[in-house]
Amino acid sequence: MLEYVTDAADPRLADYTRLRDVELRKSLEAERGLFLAEGEKVIRRAIAAGHPVRSVLTTRRWLEPLADALGDALVYVVSDETMSGIAGFPVHRGALASMARLPLPPVEAVLAPGPRRVVVPEGPAGPAEVEPVAQPVRRVLVLEDLVDHGNVGAIFRCAAALGVDGIILSPRCADPLYRRAVKVSMGAVFSIPYARMDNWFTGLDRIREAGFRTLALTPDQSVTSLDEVKMTDRVALLLGSEGDGLSSRWLAEADEAVCIPMSSRAMQAGVDSLNVVAAAAIACHGLMRSGARS
Amino acid sequence: MLEYVTDAADPRLADYTRLRDVELRKSLEAERGLFLAEGEKVIRRAIAAGHPVRSVLTTRRWLEPLADALGDALVYVVSDETMSGIAGFPVHRGALASMARLPLPPVEAVLAPGPRRVVVPEGPAGPAEVEPVAQPVRRVLVLEDLVDHGNVGAIFRCAAALGVDGIILSPRCADPLYRRAVKVSMGAVFSIPYARMDNWFTGLDRIREAGFRTLALTPDQSVTSLDEVKMTDRVALLLGSEGDGLSSRWLAEADEAVCIPMSSRAMQAGVDSLNVVAAAAIACHGLMRSGARS
Repeated sequence: MLEYVTDAADPRLADYTRLRDVELRKSLEAERGLFLAEGEKVIRRAIAAGHPVRSVLTTRRWLEPLADALGDALVYVVSDETMSGIAGFPVHRGALASMARLPLPPVEAVLAPGPRRVVVPEGPAGPAEVEPVAQPVRRVLVLEDLVDHGNVGAIFRCAAALGVDGIILSPRCADPLYRRAVKVSMGAVFSIPYARMDNWFTGLDRIREAGFRTLALTPDQSVTSLDEVKMTDRVALLLGSEGDGLSSRWLAEADEAVCIPMSSRAMQAGVDSLNVVAAAAIACHGLMRSGARS
Repeated sequence: MLEYVTDAADPRLADYTRLRDVELRKSLEAERGLFLAEGEKVIRRAIAAGHPVRSVLTTRRWLEPLADALGDALVYVVSDETMSGIAGFPVHRGALASMARLPLPPVEAVLAPGPRRVVVPEGPAGPAEVEPVAQPVRRVLVLEDLVDHGNVGAIFRCAAALGVDGIILSPRCADPLYRRAVKVSMGAVFSIPYARMDNWFTGLDRIREAGFRTLALTPDQSVTSLDEVKMTDRVALLLGSEGDGLSSRWLAEADEAVCIPMSSRAMQAGVDSLNVVAAAAIACHGLMRSGARS
């Protein structure tokens, strides 16, 4: 259903208000149970993952390429100027969709041994799959208190590309469905199963009880190298926040601490450690390589 | 030498004009042979690497922690409001320095077998080293036409942290001394030797003539895995631009193409390949791991 809107302040566009205001958006998205998907590909992936469309905001130019995916969704069509006025920045490929959140699965469901069904959204191999693939669950990431939405999105993208089976978030970790996280992930937040633990104190116990060996990633070069650590059938790798890394509690509780070997020259020169996305990329690659071997 | 400035439009502050304007800054920095370092740590590293200070722009609060590093440099002290007015954004740790560029070394100098001298700037191990360390040159990156300064900075940071010996840039690759690249690199652009090739057509020939085996990184999963490729004593890893990856010419000219193994599930789901920084992090880690073994 198409509705043409000319005024950026029109109350029908309230889901799209003040997109650059992080604090406002966080409360608004949580309160209304919505999130925003940006650009044709990401919108298609969100729909394929089963998220109901509340509405779509687009310009005439970008309506056509999306039309087949939208069914009878409510679509607000605006001019380029109105679009920029609402967003305050150039909207990627001219379309935003306000989607309904779905209840997250419990942590246990993401960690269950599998095989389980995973949605395969539309891709080069064809349209969204009606018969989704099954997979065992052997390699997961656990993110503790990351604050930057771009980093969370980038880590989801890496994890999905490299084949990590699931992600568990600490209670305070930044929201993967916040607009910037969804965008940076290129929609990977819809293809990798994830859950949020409800108790930081007992969260690692639940993961160990599910049969996972927990490895805490730290810049400390005195611990075992990620390249040499003993891997088991089921491994959960813990990644800490941008500034401080993992909490001392989680570091102490993990089965083993592991590090990515850094250059001794760099350490001597005080070159700061890898940023969390680079560390996550290397760690995911190491996890999956070991998974292929075992 | 301290000068107090109250007007953001004061001509003495011309080096710091319109910091958010990418195009203006690119031409201004190239024309005047300057670059900007932001924050105490990065400014110290730039000075330790031998870059002359044209001037420093700071607020009263951040003058003190920097004072010992500045010698008799010209320092403009402004109010917080004037600082924000000039920058248009909150300046990281309140200090900007306009530094003079130094001539880049020729490609051959960065690729020379070594050992060669490397500046060790101030770090946890102590002040900047008077007797710099020597190192052989065995592992280098070659960046072809990256356009995003943040990505270039992030790759320099990874490469320095993991111990890559040098970086060669294609003629059109984004400038590592552009403000955002310097900032994202956390100053790693001053600790890792780099050069820019002057001819894209013959650039790889020069690298091979220097005794390097050239490996072209591609998302194509039909080529040899980075984990299994034969490494030699001297290896140059080629990384392509954000959108299109390596040019077909460089792909064809390289000694071998290599890939980072991706999840078949992800490929099927059309999850986009790793972004260039994540790929670079994994590739640098693989290069250095093999370097340690051989």
